Amino acid sequence: MKNNQAASAMPVHKYRPYHEQITVDLPDRTWPSKRITEAPRWCAVDLRDGNQALIDPMSPERKRIMFDLLVQMGYKEIEVGFPSASQTDFDFVRSLIEENAIPDDVTIQVLTQAREHLIKRTYESIKGAKQAIVHLYNSTSVLQRDVVFRTDKQGVVDIALEGARLCREFEKTVPETTVYYEYSPESYTGTELEFAVDICNQVLEVFEPTPERKVIINLPSTVEMATPNVYADSIEWMGRHIDHRENVIISLHPHNDRGTGVAAAELGYLAGADRIEGCLFGNGERTGNVDLVALGINLFTQGIDPQIDFSDLDHVRRTAEYCNQLKVHERSPWAGDLVYTAFSGSHQDAIKKGFEAMAADAAEQGVSVDELTWAVPYLPVDPKDLGRSYEAVIRVNSQSGKGGVAYLLKTDHALDLPRKLQIEFSGVVQAKTDEEGGEVTSDEIWAIFNDEYLPAPAHRAEDKWGRFELTRTRTASDLGGSVSLDVELRVGDEVIETGAVGNGPIDAFLKLMSEQGIEIKLYDYVEHALSASGDALAAAYVELQVDGTRLWGVGIDADISTASLKAVVSAVNRAIRVRDADRELVGA
Amino acid sequence: MKNNQAASAMPVHKYRPYHEQITVDLPDRTWPSKRITEAPRWCAVDLRDGNQALIDPMSPERKRIMFDLLVQMGYKEIEVGFPSASQTDFDFVRSLIEENAIPDDVTIQVLTQAREHLIKRTYESIKGAKQAIVHLYNSTSVLQRDVVFRTDKQGVVDIALEGARLCREFEKTVPETTVYYEYSPESYTGTELEFAVDICNQVLEVFEPTPERKVIINLPSTVEMATPNVYADSIEWMGRHIDHRENVIISLHPHNDRGTGVAAAELGYLAGADRIEGCLFGNGERTGNVDLVALGINLFTQGIDPQIDFSDLDHVRRTAEYCNQLKVHERSPWAGDLVYTAFSGSHQDAIKKGFEAMAADAAEQGVSVDELTWAVPYLPVDPKDLGRSYEAVIRVNSQSGKGGVAYLLKTDHALDLPRKLQIEFSGVVQAKTDEEGGEVTSDEIWAIFNDEYLPAPAHRAEDKWGRFELTRTRTASDLGGSVSLDVELRVGDEVIETGAVGNGPIDAFLKLMSEQGIEIKLYDYVEHALSASGDALAAAYVELQVDGTRLWGVGIDADISTASLKAVVSAVNRAIRVRDADRELVGA
Repeated sequence: MKNNQAASAMPVHKYRPYHEQITVDLPDRTWPSKRITEAPRWCAVDLRDGNQALIDPMSPERKRIMFDLLVQMGYKEIEVGFPSASQTDFDFVRSLIEENAIPDDVTIQVLTQAREHLIKRTYESIKGAKQAIVHLYNSTSVLQRDVVFRTDKQGVVDIALEGARLCREFEKTVPETTVYYEYSPESYTGTELEFAVDICNQVLEVFEPTPERKVIINLPSTVEMATPNVYADSIEWMGRHIDHRENVIISLHPHNDRGTGVAAAELGYLAGADRIEGCLFGNGERTGNVDLVALGINLFTQGIDPQIDFSDLDHVRRTAEYCNQLKVHERSPWAGDLVYTAFSGSHQDAIKKGFEAMAADAAEQGVSVDELTWAVPYLPVDPKDLGRSYEAVIRVNSQSGKGGVAYLLKTDHALDLPRKLQIEFSGVVQAKTDEEGGEVTSDEIWAIFNDEYLPAPAHRAEDKWGRFELTRTRTASDLGGSVSLDVELRVGDEVIETGAVGNGPIDAFLKLMSEQGIEIKLYDYVEHALSASGDALAAAYVELQVDGTRLWGVGIDADISTASLKAVVSAVNRAIRVRDADRELVGA
Repeated sequence: MKNNQAASAMPVHKYRPYHEQITVDLPDRTWPSKRITEAPRWCAVDLRDGNQALIDPMSPERKRIMFDLLVQMGYKEIEVGFPSASQTDFDFVRSLIEENAIPDDVTIQVLTQAREHLIKRTYESIKGAKQAIVHLYNSTSVLQRDVVFRTDKQGVVDIALEGARLCREFEKTVPETTVYYEYSPESYTGTELEFAVDICNQVLEVFEPTPERKVIINLPSTVEMATPNVYADSIEWMGRHIDHRENVIISLHPHNDRGTGVAAAELGYLAGADRIEGCLFGNGERTGNVDLVALGINLFTQGIDPQIDFSDLDHVRRTAEYCNQLKVHERSPWAGDLVYTAFSGSHQDAIKKGFEAMAADAAEQGVSVDELTWAVPYLPVDPKDLGRSYEAVIRVNSQSGKGGVAYLLKTDHALDLPRKLQIEFSGVVQAKTDEEGGEVTSDEIWAIFNDEYLPAPAHRAEDKWGRFELTRTRTASDLGGSVSLDVELRVGDEVIETGAVGNGPIDAFLKLMSEQGIEIKLYDYVEHALSASGDALAAAYVELQVDGTRLWGVGIDADISTASLKAVVSAVNRAIRVRDADRELVGA
């Protein structure tokens, strides 16, 4: 089969592939054979990189709520602002320190450019903190050297080294604070690797990493410029060439321009990084910083403790939405409204069977379902583990099949429809959704089910549902294989009393109906209690052939025998309804 | 520095890592050293996989709009529905065919399960099409075999083979249609690779691929279960083991559960796949199918023609939003509202310099900017190439610095502020944003600028802006280095006429002001026309020291000399305002 794709008119001549800009050559890479086995060190930068990308940056009140959320979730390194660049940030850092809002095991991080008055102000901001990471950055990329700083490599190195030296100098102004350092060659992905490692190594000489005071070298994918394997190669390369590797914490800071920020973080971590900076739900400049929620829960689904509490993800989401004034998208990994929802019939069916299999396994092993390995098709995680309910899992629209409908009837109304009845009823629902479009809620499904199978209450004469209605029944058994049945039956507008004898009440009732001119053959019969208690209702399902039409009826009653007779009446009335509709069609 | 992260209470014991479920072992993988050099074959599945994941599935009208959009963008293979599972889908496929809506070079694709009545119905749906891909699938994963189908491998193979044979059988019912085949071992990522390749190879024997009628083997990441490099390894492994490789089109169908769908597609494509199925903006089940927009524009930014037209991305987005009734997120790659926006000062500054450097390069080379290689920091693509304007690129809030403010004044008001004035004015803006929060629009910046530097119109006596106001000026030069200046000047509520002589009008004016008791020292002076025409306004910027305070003033006038005098008045009035404010503070 021919590929008919044709050239577009897009101006491709304007763009140079990444490998023509930056060489990353590591044929003996080892990361693709590695596996993630434990959580990285996390650093949440919502209050800085995330905040600077908001239409409406956080107010002090929103900043504090975000900080407290991050602490509560378990983040131990939190970049709290760029205090030398914004008075709001400065005041916020001061308020955290002065109000003793920073737990002892949490380290705040503050960003600064490599300029004296900014560094000075940065140290003023952290005065009194128990510990802090001073995060020094300058831009190192080819493009920024050319067009922004109009300087050569040495000029950029000088900026970094002068900044680092000033940091060491001003460190003396905060003797009560343990200062750690982070250096970012910003726009790292646009920087020649040899130059990136050279500037980092020179900065390390100034910061003097030791086992007790390791230095963080942060390698941002400031702009994501290539497939994520290239970033991973570059990280492995840096790890091999950085000095004092044992005392250096290699940190990743991926952005998501190409939509591969999560992959860049994961592959870069495989490639030897120790730490990842990101934001909740991927907030951040342009397409965002890497999504800390996706990364953390990805680990969780592999049986690896993220060391972060995601057990009330909806709370985390609501809080982040409030602080950022940006909604989390319906399809945002693990957190969006739709990510545990199956609309399609085959998916719903599989999910339903998965839940049932787990319940059966648990019962067999005599353990709770939560002790089993999670295994439900299309649900890579148990939504309950993230504080989500199962309510959203199955939603029904015109793309849904029997599985979803059956699941909702079972979950919300304890009705366990036989498979063939599931198929019949899903056809009824689908005819309606195909006609009207849109989603059908569980309540609407219940209304459709009632309308189709269950007669309206007997005492509402105006809604007389169908031709027949049982209004009273009495059975007597001689315990010798014979049951006599007496009923009061509405037939049209008339109420008759009649009776028959059979080997059971259904058999007797079929005979009785035969006398009313309705020929019925019984194909299938299923009955179950709606709950475990003795006074519970029972549901009966019968598959009949009524005057040549094969279809199901449903009856619900506290009396198991009455429920089955009601099911027969339900099927008979449906058959008459179908026949009448056909006649109307023929007449039209 | 110690890692303080602690174990969470998340129930990690419930989850088994992927490698304990499925073995993917390919130490001699070659894909990480490869590069993408051309576009894959695309297949857009918005009308099927996308549609089945919508809260409100597309109406026939919305379906048709989506189909026409995909055709118009250049997609040549379009999965149009699951006609045997939904009457809406069936009717839609019929309408496309009966209304001749399918261009000759476009192939529609229809999904079917491997069951006779569904296959029969599928062929009924495509009757009369010039060509069609019949996409047969059945689920092959360990989990689905166990809990959904409750069958062994052979049972699953039998389902697939029976389906394939029935397809070949029913093919005869559509003699006027060229039928191609696609087979998906659905839930491939949960299937043992040996079994996946075995079932594919057996199906291939039935479909009999030839060079003219290649068969598509689609390997869905139905649920994304591992890092994307593992998916890529599996694709390379499949490529090595599939029979008739030369006549087989290996297709990827990534979902995005872990947030790495785009990476899985790209790495899988590096690993030897030929084709990618996905949806616009990553719509689709749960977290979505892989995002075709991200994939296509990612190629574009590498100088590779995606063979798809993204030149009016906002139109594509609006249409998809209408059809899907789901918004595209602000940070959706290449398409979201915020993805070309820089709020942060240093980013804005770098972007502004990038634009200027490109303009300068173009001027120097005597070419249009569009002929140059795109190189603007923080903008990996020229928004204009996707039909976006530059308007959204620079937006100003409390996180913004001088760059954004200066950019907006230049773009919208032709004012090219000197760097030191940029810094001064950005402080004015930031004081306001720090106080009030939120974004500042270009109009608001202009209002702040006017309020700070430019006097209210002279004839509005009630707004007398500052102590001094020039109401008339006259200069006379003897062309011998001396200029005499006469002015009408409002001083407070009084209007005076006065004059002075200097080596230029500014010098004369400073003397004149000195007589009014205002001591001024001139530090800098810059002037430029606001446009190229002769009758244009000029802007003058002066940096003065006024009574010990150093600050800038701005004047705009059609007369270049008057503009400079107005600038002095502006600075003087500002100095008085600052002094008065300080006095008030001291008094308070």
